[in-house]
Amino acid sequence: MPAKKQNGKIFWYEVMTMRIGIYQGEGIPTAKEENLAILRRAAIDANEQGAGLIVFPELFLTGYNIGDRVFEAAEPSKGPSAQKVADIARKLDIAVLYGYPEKFEKRIYNSALLIDAQGNILANCRKTHLYGDQENSVFQPGDELILADLDGLKVGLLICYDIEFPEAARMLALAGAELIAVPTALMEPYCRTARILVPARALENQLFVAYANRCGSESNLTYCGLSCVVGPDGEDLVRAGTSEGLFIADIDVSAIAAARGENPYLADLRPDLYATKVRIQ
Amino acid sequence: MPAKKQNGKIFWYEVMTMRIGIYQGEGIPTAKEENLAILRRAAIDANEQGAGLIVFPELFLTGYNIGDRVFEAAEPSKGPSAQKVADIARKLDIAVLYGYPEKFEKRIYNSALLIDAQGNILANCRKTHLYGDQENSVFQPGDELILADLDGLKVGLLICYDIEFPEAARMLALAGAELIAVPTALMEPYCRTARILVPARALENQLFVAYANRCGSESNLTYCGLSCVVGPDGEDLVRAGTSEGLFIADIDVSAIAAARGENPYLADLRPDLYATKVRIQ
Repeated sequence: MPAKKQNGKIFWYEVMTMRIGIYQGEGIPTAKEENLAILRRAAIDANEQGAGLIVFPELFLTGYNIGDRVFEAAEPSKGPSAQKVADIARKLDIAVLYGYPEKFEKRIYNSALLIDAQGNILANCRKTHLYGDQENSVFQPGDELILADLDGLKVGLLICYDIEFPEAARMLALAGAELIAVPTALMEPYCRTARILVPARALENQLFVAYANRCGSESNLTYCGLSCVVGPDGEDLVRAGTSEGLFIADIDVSAIAAARGENPYLADLRPDLYATKVRIQ
Repeated sequence: MPAKKQNGKIFWYEVMTMRIGIYQGEGIPTAKEENLAILRRAAIDANEQGAGLIVFPELFLTGYNIGDRVFEAAEPSKGPSAQKVADIARKLDIAVLYGYPEKFEKRIYNSALLIDAQGNILANCRKTHLYGDQENSVFQPGDELILADLDGLKVGLLICYDIEFPEAARMLALAGAELIAVPTALMEPYCRTARILVPARALENQLFVAYANRCGSESNLTYCGLSCVVGPDGEDLVRAGTSEGLFIADIDVSAIAAARGENPYLADLRPDLYATKVRIQ
């Protein structure tokens, strides 16, 4: 069991560590079975390295830049591909977070599914900040943020553009998130997001962020890679380059209390001030 | 006149550029006259290089780490030192922003004064997020954020720890800030703020941030230096090391519209979402 718990307390946090893997890769556009095979192989690798959770990029099941083909590729959150990933998770004893296009009634969402190591669907997250004309023409935006309990680790879920808005990560932090896990498809020329904004979210909220991006090219898009896990001090625990691969980091939840004990950002918030108007003079 | 205006419009912004200077230095603890002399020399240098505004560090008038001596050093916002700085600004034809301890009735604020090139006091900003026990034991927190109009440039004012909270910079951005100017006294081991959070504020709000820090040591504190001006794309326009000096950058306001045209963060905000509660499951 890679996720281990002890009984000691540091401040208000349980002492807990979890090894997590982030898979950075391209997948194959619209080829769900092939992408599920890639997912399975990466999950095997992650499990062999002791990871309790593996995070895949945005829309990893189908490809991101597949235009209108996303309509026929979309599945319900408990559809056949979800069942296959649940089987993989259960057999390998590893939790999996991956992006897929979700069909719900007559709408399509850009979603991510978190499945635990017993094969239970823990959470279905719908992207709340859609990026650009293409996404807005295809997807419906989600209307809620989700925090899931993964074997005692509080995992907030965001997708790609969502993490670029400090409001979203702050809401998850205030709700108790210890890790924000982010399937993403960040493309050139926006690589600064991975380099500047992702570490900022970790540092300003003093929590872990796992950011699993695509790499390579897909039709007219070139992805940035630069997937990472960042700690509560804003420093990279692991950082990918631009190549395909599995990247591993250990999350030690006690680092959150240590960071907040030294510099209490959340305690120093001024909601009274934020409810005022700026004085213009 | 270093600030120049033209009649053309790009998107909704006036085409406007302003050269600004940031002074990174130590000053001399409690020695107001000497610090005013340093301020004057730096303003002369900045003016000779064509700057329309120069920004000094937090509590530059008196020193930052002077303990209870701040009570006798404090002055009203229109006190004798403010008059001297106004004289310097008017004679040199350069706007000045500098930090000082403000005496108001029986309270002391950690404040910064913005004086225009005609010697008018444009704005008095009081630090709203006090840092740590020492500041909280001495200062009263400010209760409002201020946006000033400096010859047509919309300048939001924050002090040090304030910029570490995305909420404060966001409020100024939504109120129309084009530049957020930040007198600061960032000390070791928190240098990540200058490296990670300051560029993030510029990038996520797509505006300019000018961050003028102390360097060297003052009693038991060692300051980080790393003063900077960052553009709306999150990239440094100028970045200091750890030595004393004047650093110059050109602010081209049209870069704001260009950044927002490409990636409309402020237009893509989801206030409806931010008013909801995180779903915990």
